[in-house]
Amino acid sequence: MMFLLIIFTLAFLFSSCNALDFCVGDLSAPQGPAGYSCKKTEKVTVKDFVFSGLRAAGNTSNLSKVTIMPAFSTQFPGVNGLGISVARVDFSVNGRGLMHTHPEAAEVLLVIQGTLCAGFVSSTNKIYLTSLHEGDVMVFPQGLMHFLINVGKSSALAFTSYTSTSPSIYFMDYAWFANDMSTDILQKTTFLDHDQIKKLKGVFGGTN
Amino acid sequence: MMFLLIIFTLAFLFSSCNALDFCVGDLSAPQGPAGYSCKKTEKVTVKDFVFSGLRAAGNTSNLSKVTIMPAFSTQFPGVNGLGISVARVDFSVNGRGLMHTHPEAAEVLLVIQGTLCAGFVSSTNKIYLTSLHEGDVMVFPQGLMHFLINVGKSSALAFTSYTSTSPSIYFMDYAWFANDMSTDILQKTTFLDHDQIKKLKGVFGGTN
Amino acid sequence: MMFLLIIFTLAFLFSSCNALDFCVGDLSAPQGPAGYSCKKTEKVTVKDFVFSGLRAAGNTSNLSKVTIMPAFSTQFPGVNGLGISVARVDFSVNGRGLMHTHPEAAEVLLVIQGTLCAGFVSSTNKIYLTSLHEGDVMVFPQGLMHFLINVGKSSALAFTSYTSTSPSIYFMDYAWFANDMSTDILQKTTFLDHDQIKKLKGVFGGTN
Amino acid sequence: MMFLLIIFTLAFLFSSCNALDFCVGDLSAPQGPAGYSCKKTEKVTVKDFVFSGLRAAGNTSNLSKVTIMPAFSTQFPGVNGLGISVARVDFSVNGRGLMHTHPEAAEVLLVIQGTLCAGFVSSTNKIYLTSLHEGDVMVFPQGLMHFLINVGKSSALAFTSYTSTSPSIYFMDYAWFANDMSTDILQKTTFLDHDQIKKLKGVFGGTN
Amino acid sequence: MMFLLIIFTLAFLFSSCNALDFCVGDLSAPQGPAGYSCKKTEKVTVKDFVFSGLRAAGNTSNLSKVTIMPAFSTQFPGVNGLGISVARVDFSVNGRGLMHTHPEAAEVLLVIQGTLCAGFVSSTNKIYLTSLHEGDVMVFPQGLMHFLINVGKSSALAFTSYTSTSPSIYFMDYAWFANDMSTDILQKTTFLDHDQIKKLKGVFGGTN
Amino acid sequence: MMFLLIIFTLAFLFSSCNALDFCVGDLSAPQGPAGYSCKKTEKVTVKDFVFSGLRAAGNTSNLSKVTIMPAFSTQFPGVNGLGISVARVDFSVNGRGLMHTHPEAAEVLLVIQGTLCAGFVSSTNKIYLTSLHEGDVMVFPQGLMHFLINVGKSSALAFTSYTSTSPSIYFMDYAWFANDMSTDILQKTTFLDHDQIKKLKGVFGGTN
Repeated sequence: MMFLLIIFTLAFLFSSCNALDFCVGDLSAPQGPAGYSCKKTEKVTVKDFVFSGLRAAGNTSNLSKVTIMPAFSTQFPGVNGLGISVARVDFSVNGRGLMHTHPEAAEVLLVIQGTLCAGFVSSTNKIYLTSLHEGDVMVFPQGLMHFLINVGKSSALAFTSYTSTSPSIYFMDYAWFANDMSTDILQKTTFLDHDQIKKLKGVFGGTN
Repeated sequence: MMFLLIIFTLAFLFSSCNALDFCVGDLSAPQGPAGYSCKKTEKVTVKDFVFSGLRAAGNTSNLSKVTIMPAFSTQFPGVNGLGISVARVDFSVNGRGLMHTHPEAAEVLLVIQGTLCAGFVSSTNKIYLTSLHEGDVMVFPQGLMHFLINVGKSSALAFTSYTSTSPSIYFMDYAWFANDMSTDILQKTTFLDHDQIKKLKGVFGGTN
Repeated sequence: MMFLLIIFTLAFLFSSCNALDFCVGDLSAPQGPAGYSCKKTEKVTVKDFVFSGLRAAGNTSNLSKVTIMPAFSTQFPGVNGLGISVARVDFSVNGRGLMHTHPEAAEVLLVIQGTLCAGFVSSTNKIYLTSLHEGDVMVFPQGLMHFLINVGKSSALAFTSYTSTSPSIYFMDYAWFANDMSTDILQKTTFLDHDQIKKLKGVFGGTN
Repeated sequence: MMFLLIIFTLAFLFSSCNALDFCVGDLSAPQGPAGYSCKKTEKVTVKDFVFSGLRAAGNTSNLSKVTIMPAFSTQFPGVNGLGISVARVDFSVNGRGLMHTHPEAAEVLLVIQGTLCAGFVSSTNKIYLTSLHEGDVMVFPQGLMHFLINVGKSSALAFTSYTSTSPSIYFMDYAWFANDMSTDILQKTTFLDHDQIKKLKGVFGGTN
Repeated sequence: MMFLLIIFTLAFLFSSCNALDFCVGDLSAPQGPAGYSCKKTEKVTVKDFVFSGLRAAGNTSNLSKVTIMPAFSTQFPGVNGLGISVARVDFSVNGRGLMHTHPEAAEVLLVIQGTLCAGFVSSTNKIYLTSLHEGDVMVFPQGLMHFLINVGKSSALAFTSYTSTSPSIYFMDYAWFANDMSTDILQKTTFLDHDQIKKLKGVFGGTN
Repeated sequence: MMFLLIIFTLAFLFSSCNALDFCVGDLSAPQGPAGYSCKKTEKVTVKDFVFSGLRAAGNTSNLSKVTIMPAFSTQFPGVNGLGISVARVDFSVNGRGLMHTHPEAAEVLLVIQGTLCAGFVSSTNKIYLTSLHEGDVMVFPQGLMHFLINVGKSSALAFTSYTSTSPSIYFMDYAWFANDMSTDILQKTTFLDHDQIKKLKGVFGGTN
């Protein structure tokens, strides 16, 4: 009898060490450079470590016929502090993941269904281009522009993993044409023509 | 004419900056705490960033009816230095991913096919247990023991991502019963019975 | 006179820089992935940087005849943010530090008194086994299972340092047998026998 | 006499510790994810820690009327392993630093001479735009597109610092129009018009 | 019409991802080991990323005829979480940057005006000494004592960058002679003479 | 029979993963910013993880009556890449650990025998001073000057741990007075008197 008592005392001692096995994000508490504050351990449940929002295909009825559904720390608070997150990417026929970067993360893409043309461009302006088939994985180094095109005859599905719990998805087109940056500045800093800029601001909803 | 000449000079200047966009692993060169040495940029091709070895299911004709196929820096040198890697996990009916940890990595598991019973245990000895269905993702914090059991009626398939380019896969059973650690030491440090240890050493190929 | 005035002005300027020489943990404030919030510098005293709780031997009247007394960030808030902590380990005669890992930390063990048998197992299932004497140090890589047995004729004493301010101490026996994980799951994921599991659940206080 | 002998012995002991005060890059040795191998300490001189290549303005007779002269680890091996580097940026009248990112580094820009219009775009597509005068500093977060335009009446000069020893300078125009990426892929992934792409490939020297 | 609607929905989805492009410091919120808590993105403006406090020379009417004006995270909250900051250093004729270290940061110094004698000392007690002219950059490895002397005939100006957002500026003279550390302890731990210590305590405002 | 064959095949697969459980330093191979290159795993033995050079007291017959014996990566290659190391410090009666810093490491000091007066100085020039007794631990934040004086009646013994595998031990006296730095520069940058400098250069073996 006394035997078990000692063990429980020992166990209690360790649980009071407050070890950081994990730091599930408390979405309502302050956020710092390293991520969200930690939810109190006694309020953490297995649900914090599981995300089911990627089960079904997203709606690809948009301009690029592609949709990205994130499981980042905001959706999936169990990854907070762990330096990893994932997303689901659905492509309709002819869907294309527009030229984009992840400013703070490397990405590994896994093709589950379909055939993709994929590429990225290095800072020495070399293009690394390939075809990806079901079961292939490809890595995109941090911050480099990459793109994906569904070149198969049916819809395609991929999952992506990132070296960040809240990787930005940073589309060049949106950054340039979906805000109020002046056409004059864009002309000067991209060498794009005035009419081209105006046309794409029309498409992406930008002004000025 | 002079115009383009100037641009090429500029481009050459930048390519000589030797920027580390990536550091594809040179598997034959020295390895350091941060990973493999970098392959020279001029020898890097898109093939370094793609791995096709996960297309087909692995052979699950083994004790646990599960097989793990890694795409780590040794198989997939493009991830070297980028802090991420992936693997494919196939489960036959009744297959089980035995109790294991990844000593240096957190893991996100993505279920592509089947239904898994999954769990991990925290250092305060709490078990976080759940069922996972197709499209679900679950995160296992670094270093914590976890397991997976195929509880569906057919084979299952999952892909895993890690926060390391060469995450160890560290099975408790193999660590204890697949080497020459003496039964006496194991008894003293695990409280397992002598006969249990001998039996499992028989199963896993250990001696002593 | 004017001379000193200028100096004080300068000194005040610098103290207002709010440099982060240290970040003593404020145990009552939010905790994030990088540790506790910082106590305000004006409330920090030398007592925050000193811990005297390791002066005396801990109580080893327990199952394993070993006790671990932590000086982690919860007990010793001066280490918060500094990436290091320590502990005292007392061994009675025949005491054994059961098989365990530190999921987020490497450890250096220093033997102050006695003779220990020490070992760890790599993820390639190799055992690294040795005897340690007074004054010896041994390093256990992060996340690998290790154990210690007092093989001398009297009590033993060691101190440990960790590469984390709140390293988990993660015992395989406690994780498996001191909670409500079902015997069936344990059987399937460890290959231990039903009776062995039931027996050890009895010893460590587990159910199911 | 014996006194000094003891001191020298002590000094020798410490120098043999091989402490890593710094790791000056050995440009001829293997490079790893963390940078160049270290030059042997006995071959290191103060010249390794100083770079005089930024004294004079660079040649701005190019398309954008801007030139960037790097003092990165290749030019300035003393910064290797220290996580910082700098560059000099000269702007002729009307010079513009084209839209670019640094995929692995944050940047602080310091204006020494002239007036610049500066901006960056966040991943939520918001533009942060301002005028910078002599003595102003501005920070560009890692991986975000930014640009600079000399809006003054004479040439301008700025110095930049980076959180990397070899930050890539990654121009969108060069990445898209200075290589052999096919016009068709560019059209599909940027929504730019065929003629616009062909025109800029002409300017930047690209093909296909 | 429906077209644009879809795009806006997509844009909204991404902005809700709460990606950490940056973490502008909220100076009134808790500070942790990784820096200040993040200001809410909707309150961030371009002013957070710009600092104009370094435009004019600081007052060098002090003992060392040098003044340092910081643009660290407290003055310049845009750098919070980005691992970089800068400062302006003005030297009158004969001004000297006294022997000091930055305990948590490497520094790159850029000379804008004048001629400086600069040096640092390694932990193997070797001095790295040089003259610096306009446009020169020099790197001081983390934690090593360094100094700067204006050896030109007029005032000098330099800017410094650091691998920390709040680097301490740690002067040996102030640390020893500008507080209440007892003369006896200082004698024992520095080998300085009693009278020397008393004299410098007088100069720097220390007691005891 | 076939059973075991399958298991061995599986084990072989994993050992070929080349996981980085550890990276024992190969002292003859190139060193990089992250430490020594890794010894090949097949050449690693338990001896690499154990260091017995700290068993006996060091020779304290020197000026400060203190000696430090390091177990850093050069002496103890098993710590390479693991971010931790230790040392033994012996104090004769009246021995004093002179004012010093560790430019790249925080330290935890553990008193095994004797009574020490210990202190450190923050960058806001505040002294944190205390007495330490057997079993006490004290943490010294990275880069801050600290000292230790044996104030007991007999010799003292301490062990120290560091957050670096090769922490520099950086004594102010040695850095200033044990090399060829000119007395004039020292006067200008420390405010020490000419005679004081000459005297201490005599003691510590410096010239100029």
